[in-house]
Amino acid sequence: MKHLLNSAAVALILTGASAYANESVLTETAKPEQWAIQTGDYANQRYSELDQITRENVGDLRVAWTFSTGVLRGHEGGPLVIGDIMYVHTPFPNNIFALDLSDNGRILWRHTPQQDPEVIAVMCCDTVYRGVAYADGLIISHQADTTLVALDAMTGEVKWSVQTGDPAIGETNTATVMPVGDKVLVGVSGGEYGVRGRITAYNLSDGTEAWKAYSTGPDEEMLVNAETTMHLGEPIGADSSLNSWEGDQWKIGGGSTWGWFSYDPDLNLVYYGTGNPSTWNPSQRPGDNRWSMTIMARDADTGEAKWFYQKTPHDEWDYDGVNENILVDKEIDGEMRKLLVNFDRNGFAYTMDRESGELLVAEKFDPAVNWATEVDMDPESETYGRPMVVSEYSTAQNGEDTNTTGVCPAALGTKDQQPASYSPKTGLFYVPTNHVCMDYEPFRVAYTAGQPYVGATLSMYPAPDSHGGMGNFIAWDAVAGEIKWSLPEQFSVWSGALATAGDVVFYGTLEGFLKAVDAETGEELYSFKTPSGIIGNTMTYEHDGKQYIAVLSGVGGWAGIGLAAGLTNPNDGLGAVGGYAALSDYTELGGQLTVFELPD
Amino acid sequence: MKHLLNSAAVALILTGASAYANESVLTETAKPEQWAIQTGDYANQRYSELDQITRENVGDLRVAWTFSTGVLRGHEGGPLVIGDIMYVHTPFPNNIFALDLSDNGRILWRHTPQQDPEVIAVMCCDTVYRGVAYADGLIISHQADTTLVALDAMTGEVKWSVQTGDPAIGETNTATVMPVGDKVLVGVSGGEYGVRGRITAYNLSDGTEAWKAYSTGPDEEMLVNAETTMHLGEPIGADSSLNSWEGDQWKIGGGSTWGWFSYDPDLNLVYYGTGNPSTWNPSQRPGDNRWSMTIMARDADTGEAKWFYQKTPHDEWDYDGVNENILVDKEIDGEMRKLLVNFDRNGFAYTMDRESGELLVAEKFDPAVNWATEVDMDPESETYGRPMVVSEYSTAQNGEDTNTTGVCPAALGTKDQQPASYSPKTGLFYVPTNHVCMDYEPFRVAYTAGQPYVGATLSMYPAPDSHGGMGNFIAWDAVAGEIKWSLPEQFSVWSGALATAGDVVFYGTLEGFLKAVDAETGEELYSFKTPSGIIGNTMTYEHDGKQYIAVLSGVGGWAGIGLAAGLTNPNDGLGAVGGYAALSDYTELGGQLTVFELPD
Ligand SMILES: O=C(O)c1cc(C(=O)O)c2c(n1)C(=O)C(=O)c1cc(C(=O)O)[nH]c1-2
Ligand SMILES: O=C(O)c1cc(C(=O)O)c2c(n1)C(=O)C(=O)c1cc(C(=O)O)[nH]c1-2
Repeated sequence: MKHLLNSAAVALILTGASAYANESVLTETAKPEQWAIQTGDYANQRYSELDQITRENVGDLRVAWTFSTGVLRGHEGGPLVIGDIMYVHTPFPNNIFALDLSDNGRILWRHTPQQDPEVIAVMCCDTVYRGVAYADGLIISHQADTTLVALDAMTGEVKWSVQTGDPAIGETNTATVMPVGDKVLVGVSGGEYGVRGRITAYNLSDGTEAWKAYSTGPDEEMLVNAETTMHLGEPIGADSSLNSWEGDQWKIGGGSTWGWFSYDPDLNLVYYGTGNPSTWNPSQRPGDNRWSMTIMARDADTGEAKWFYQKTPHDEWDYDGVNENILVDKEIDGEMRKLLVNFDRNGFAYTMDRESGELLVAEKFDPAVNWATEVDMDPESETYGRPMVVSEYSTAQNGEDTNTTGVCPAALGTKDQQPASYSPKTGLFYVPTNHVCMDYEPFRVAYTAGQPYVGATLSMYPAPDSHGGMGNFIAWDAVAGEIKWSLPEQFSVWSGALATAGDVVFYGTLEGFLKAVDAETGEELYSFKTPSGIIGNTMTYEHDGKQYIAVLSGVGGWAGIGLAAGLTNPNDGLGAVGGYAALSDYTELGGQLTVFELPD
Repeated sequence: MKHLLNSAAVALILTGASAYANESVLTETAKPEQWAIQTGDYANQRYSELDQITRENVGDLRVAWTFSTGVLRGHEGGPLVIGDIMYVHTPFPNNIFALDLSDNGRILWRHTPQQDPEVIAVMCCDTVYRGVAYADGLIISHQADTTLVALDAMTGEVKWSVQTGDPAIGETNTATVMPVGDKVLVGVSGGEYGVRGRITAYNLSDGTEAWKAYSTGPDEEMLVNAETTMHLGEPIGADSSLNSWEGDQWKIGGGSTWGWFSYDPDLNLVYYGTGNPSTWNPSQRPGDNRWSMTIMARDADTGEAKWFYQKTPHDEWDYDGVNENILVDKEIDGEMRKLLVNFDRNGFAYTMDRESGELLVAEKFDPAVNWATEVDMDPESETYGRPMVVSEYSTAQNGEDTNTTGVCPAALGTKDQQPASYSPKTGLFYVPTNHVCMDYEPFRVAYTAGQPYVGATLSMYPAPDSHGGMGNFIAWDAVAGEIKWSLPEQFSVWSGALATAGDVVFYGTLEGFLKAVDAETGEELYSFKTPSGIIGNTMTYEHDGKQYIAVLSGVGGWAGIGLAAGLTNPNDGLGAVGGYAALSDYTELGGQLTVFELPD
């Protein structure tokens, strides 16, 4: 039965004829010469069938052309290519350029929204923006100030525009949107300002709201059904969120949704994660704080919750659970399974059945992880699916105003927003990771709307007793739950990976290097110093029969916040400034696109 | 006798043993693998002996590495290379980076001055900076706010710092300094704010003032000697400046000194030009307005004036006379002459004897030039050395509040700050030019210290009845006074040229292309789209035995002021915004270094 469904899904994707799915997205993402949504495809695999650039010739790569975005600070996400046009976005003020690939990157149109710069003050982790999406002839952009705008992809004309949140209470946006069916899904940032997380679906045709699903609160506002929404194989039960909070704390309890969406057109389910519970001081919010830190599977048409899995109940370390969920089909124990693979901030990589939400594998993807010994995998256990927390590293057990030291990973996790990629050819996941530990001292904090609601002082440093660097780029086997190879990096790898059919994997470094490595062995095959630190995601496209690789440079994001915001106090930038101080020896602010090609 | 002197000078340059010259500058600029001062050498030839990159292989050029400066807006000037270190500067706030060429451009030190951003309001033509100079182990920088600072070249430590002007009365700096002897020479900007131009020499050892020479005013303040300072072969006479102004207008009469310095170590003379008389409304300042618009030759030790030549007496078009004076030795009529070649804003290229100030050639270097028919070359004539002004294009004769139309060139001249280069191999000058005309309507304006003192409304457009573009890149024969070849460009060529012993000439375009052309024929051999419009000056260096080409991108300057300052009204930016409006279809603000190499 599963096999049959799976084949059907594949057929639907190939023909682009799914009754549920947005035909445009399926059609456009199926063309390997294009890159139509930020995640590459609905499955978030960030894999390309293009194979002109191979492990044999990638060493000859050279820069084809470049483009300055005219904006500094952290450049996350990457360009899209639809037909002959490349779409490039910037951090705040979220400018968009349409570049003519047939005419030396000439600017066909530019969209330069006027946004109140006050919003910058309520963005936790730099003015980043993970980019626009394409669907049905529209470029859809979700600005920092939570304006959602749909532009005519050919002319840049604004088709419709709608406000999705309120920056006055700390609601902002940094995430890309996901067009699914006849809707577009958007999240909200603000876990450090006590927002109440949710995702909202807007109708692609006119921007009217279709449905909204909160991360916390009453069942009906979460679109949860006590009987049919599942949690680790059991019905979730009534008031599952309300029961896990003290009083009304859930109303300012975070669970924001600033990560990535994936979508299975066959199951018609969307997947995404929720962020940290607010505040960072765990003593102020006893309970599991559901459904923060949770992978959510929802019906794309109605938003109804199919299943939830909370990775870090009662978070004590800011391990937001928003990282991308990569959808792959793989044999496990002789059976083909529809899988979802998630590399969580908390340092565990989860392999789940994406139809049922069954937990199959949960293993550390960095040996430095020490806050928990393991995830309880025994379905009969009281603590099934929960991490086994080590008391020494429990900031809740150690209590307010106590500095818990040596916790690994640091708050920015073993992996943060930087998306991994998956190669169906090697069957491996390629994961940009952080190798950073922290000291964490929670303190009592009062909530004021629109003001930081953090409640902890942090400092960060490279994982001790290791290679001295703050990152690794790893290859991961999601069935075995094992690292295949690991490349040490001086700084966290804060850029998204790309795997290609040429058996090459690309990623960028905070110093600014674009690197290409052998997909099998991890051997470095190419390295080029781009203008600024890379926190963007590498993509590839083909134009006039030639394959190109493109990436945005522009140091920033949480890891680069010291440079981006000009901070020097080690504890500033939510504790990231000190750990990454040496970055200023390597790079400066930027905002550039670099496009690579093979010589003719 | 002239022959003898000339050979002696060459010998002195080669041995670096001149009693007058700064040995460090002579030694460092004599090494072809380096680029020690902005002009390449004291002669301002912008020529390099490096010849690995040739007209045969330049087509294979590729990007070696890149660096983002972290600053947007117009990037003029270029990097220096001394030993293994490259020095990169930025526009306001005039940051400086020392990059390790032996370690992937790692940042050895950075200098990030804190300047009052108020100074930006009194910079006429973008926040540009034409770069730092090296001498005696010091990096010398002259900031926008007229702070002159000497840094230890190895550590970035501030050795001394001195204030050279007062931004409160519109005095700013955009020019590079010139180290000569045991001094460093600096100019001042502010012709559009009624400053009184001068150059000042500071002692390299401690920054104390050595001498100061005004462009206008009493003889003693100009360091002019009525008997020994010459003007076209005659003693200049007493009160030569005071006699040429009405009342005290000379005190707010401009003649600023924001261009380039050159130096002949044999003659021990420095050469530079003075800018427009203030205001732009000629009716407010009857007379020749001496010594605005003048090439000046001064003794490097004392500042004493040797000779002056005023190219545009009583300017009516803002044709600042500050362009670089290129020193070459050439045979004219069978005799070796020490020449000075100047491509003036007014559209005439002057070839002079640099020892005596004799005028040898004055010819139009753009056929579009129409404001004057010719320069009177008859030594017996009353108007010897003066341009023959065409009444139709005389904004003074047409008078206040009359729009004089169709004047060629526009105020930004046939060439502005963008320096030309000279190849001793071809004997040709390579000149980045503007091909722009204007309408000019003067109006009465009152002087208020620190406020714009312009008094004219301008609009600019491509030279009519020509190729439709706004620029040409030309090769010039300075003895014949003839264009050898001319390459049409869509926009003004606002970047400095570089000629090399590989018979290749490099220049950048406002769209962002770095171009390489054949030094003999002008044939385009290579073109690459850098991140942003190029107004920087291409340079070359050798490291570890390999030749590199480097250039700063970052659109701006007067031509790019619309993009740089976000102006859209066609008459804004002193009239430049309208003419260059189409630039926004090609490029965005930037600030990047791109370094090129041949494949191994
Ligand atoms: O809780 C939130 O709402 C929220 C938002 C964001 C964001 O919007 O970028 C980040 C985080 N949290 C966060 O915890 C985090 O590590 C982080 C890193 C980055 C980044 O782009 O580098 N953003 C964010
Ligand atoms: O009169 C002056 O003091 C003054 C200063 C400057 C400057 O400092 O850049 C320019 C000019 N004038 C000027 O006339 C001009 O065309 C110009 C162009 C540029 C440039 O860098 O693009 N600067 C200046």
